[in-house]
Amino acid sequence: MAKSNSRRGESALIAHYFAPLCDPDASFGLTDDAAFLTVPDGQQLVLTKDMLVADVHFFANDRPELIARKALRVNLSDLAAKGASPLGYMLGLGLPADWNEDWLSAFCEGLKQDQGEFSFPLIGGDTVKTAERLTLSITALGTVKAGKPILRRNAQPGDDVYVSGTIGDGALGLLARRGTLSKLTTSKQSDYLVDRFLLPRPRIDLSPLICHFASASMDISDGLLGDAAKMAMAAGVSITLMLEDIPLSDAGNMLVQRQPNLMHTALSGGDDYELLFCAPRMHREAIMQTAQTFKTPITCVGAVEVGKGVNLFDRENNCLVAGQNGAYEHF
Amino acid sequence: MAKSNSRRGESALIAHYFAPLCDPDASFGLTDDAAFLTVPDGQQLVLTKDMLVADVHFFANDRPELIARKALRVNLSDLAAKGASPLGYMLGLGLPADWNEDWLSAFCEGLKQDQGEFSFPLIGGDTVKTAERLTLSITALGTVKAGKPILRRNAQPGDDVYVSGTIGDGALGLLARRGTLSKLTTSKQSDYLVDRFLLPRPRIDLSPLICHFASASMDISDGLLGDAAKMAMAAGVSITLMLEDIPLSDAGNMLVQRQPNLMHTALSGGDDYELLFCAPRMHREAIMQTAQTFKTPITCVGAVEVGKGVNLFDRENNCLVAGQNGAYEHF
Repeated sequence: MAKSNSRRGESALIAHYFAPLCDPDASFGLTDDAAFLTVPDGQQLVLTKDMLVADVHFFANDRPELIARKALRVNLSDLAAKGASPLGYMLGLGLPADWNEDWLSAFCEGLKQDQGEFSFPLIGGDTVKTAERLTLSITALGTVKAGKPILRRNAQPGDDVYVSGTIGDGALGLLARRGTLSKLTTSKQSDYLVDRFLLPRPRIDLSPLICHFASASMDISDGLLGDAAKMAMAAGVSITLMLEDIPLSDAGNMLVQRQPNLMHTALSGGDDYELLFCAPRMHREAIMQTAQTFKTPITCVGAVEVGKGVNLFDRENNCLVAGQNGAYEHF
Repeated sequence: MAKSNSRRGESALIAHYFAPLCDPDASFGLTDDAAFLTVPDGQQLVLTKDMLVADVHFFANDRPELIARKALRVNLSDLAAKGASPLGYMLGLGLPADWNEDWLSAFCEGLKQDQGEFSFPLIGGDTVKTAERLTLSITALGTVKAGKPILRRNAQPGDDVYVSGTIGDGALGLLARRGTLSKLTTSKQSDYLVDRFLLPRPRIDLSPLICHFASASMDISDGLLGDAAKMAMAAGVSITLMLEDIPLSDAGNMLVQRQPNLMHTALSGGDDYELLFCAPRMHREAIMQTAQTFKTPITCVGAVEVGKGVNLFDRENNCLVAGQNGAYEHF
């Protein structure tokens, strides 16, 4: 741990910054080597882990609050995809050599804000000096009712395929964050997209719907087409998507109309953090009715079929993408 | 993920290297976003997380098998300190830009070896490219009987203080690894110490003894004196240690006789990964008898008293260290 005069040592850093964020029942004020958790009877633990590295997964000069919140949210998104309720998280924090207290203070403010929003306390972790890029490793824990976990591999021919929210905003937001879209968007549109890139919306609110209806579910972190291909492969099925049905935001729609090849970015880029799930066709009406009780829109975008890989069709029934890996080569 | 011609992409890497290491019941062949764990009735989950960075926590050119095994073992050591049985682990692997398949293959061999030795399967994780130093983040999970967790803070005046194994070999092994001790040791002694530094022995075998007798327990990762000071602070007590009783290995003993200031290194350096635990005095005989059934020696090295900080006395009752942080200033 860095111990220069102007900065706290590891113990002081834990006591000052991290102890106030922790769940006292599980982590004893972070004064111990380990956290203790009781999983309620009839519940099963869901665990997921994401590493995030500066200038790979976020920009090192992004606001520290937003880096913290995105790190939590990409993990919460994985929990949401499994229909889980957040329980808590462990934080591995690799600080670069030039970290300072202002940065860390703002970073912890971001953690605090989203911990509150998602009832997701810190339960433990480790802080080290990396000498190079900021590196975050989050282990997120949640609970689901014990029974049949909702896995990618359970997609069945005959299922409908749904997505939450709108697709492509994260990838278009990355372009906007880089300034690539400045001639194509208003500043309001650009701000909307950048915000979607910097601050994913983990769909924890949809967990009850996922638990009740979904046969298979995952979050879309690497692009709809690529992630649908992963689901198709895990389940040994084909997933057919209808281009016209894929929901874009107003900003996304406008961009694709002005520059059609941005549809490629929208469908293949990362950082959506929306849910991709399947459910038996017989539940379609109930799902669409239930969805109306949530703020987040749900859209049926295709179907699971016997076969392999992802197929994307336009309204004239032209196949735009056909293949196992969802590569978007024909646009 | 690195995707150069000569190396696999992330999915292929997971399928080839990590899926064979995983627990199929919990992780579904690593084909999903999350792992699912059922904690048996009456058991509580123990979680710990350590990040390790190349050239901070290990040498980048250490053998990859040993890097892998040490990463698992430092986490297993935390579980052992809580009297826990290993359940499984999640691996965050930040690969440097120049990783190659030979390295990764050997690294996974190391994981496999210690997973077997400690019944500690992989249940999930994440692999990213860090562009700089190898970074490992392990979240280790274990179980204990639900009830009163064995924390640092539960040390009580009147308790005896014990350590497992021998103290200082890790810190002296680091010096030997750097070649600093070559004029002082035989190559056999040096090999012994380097091995102790590279390959900690997590005292999982002592878990039943810890569970049965210990009031408080932690592992010694930052030096006996500093860690005893942490325990004293967490419990609001003083810990008195007797120098003559602190067990050194033959190699450690020889070094300290030849160069007395190495005692400072032995007691303040890191990487022991032995257990430091307290137990009521009334259990001393039972503990020493039980200890004979284990290969790892147990030594009573001091006592918990009313007060603050760590005090170290020599056989003439001179106080060598007195203070809250265990700083070893008077040697």
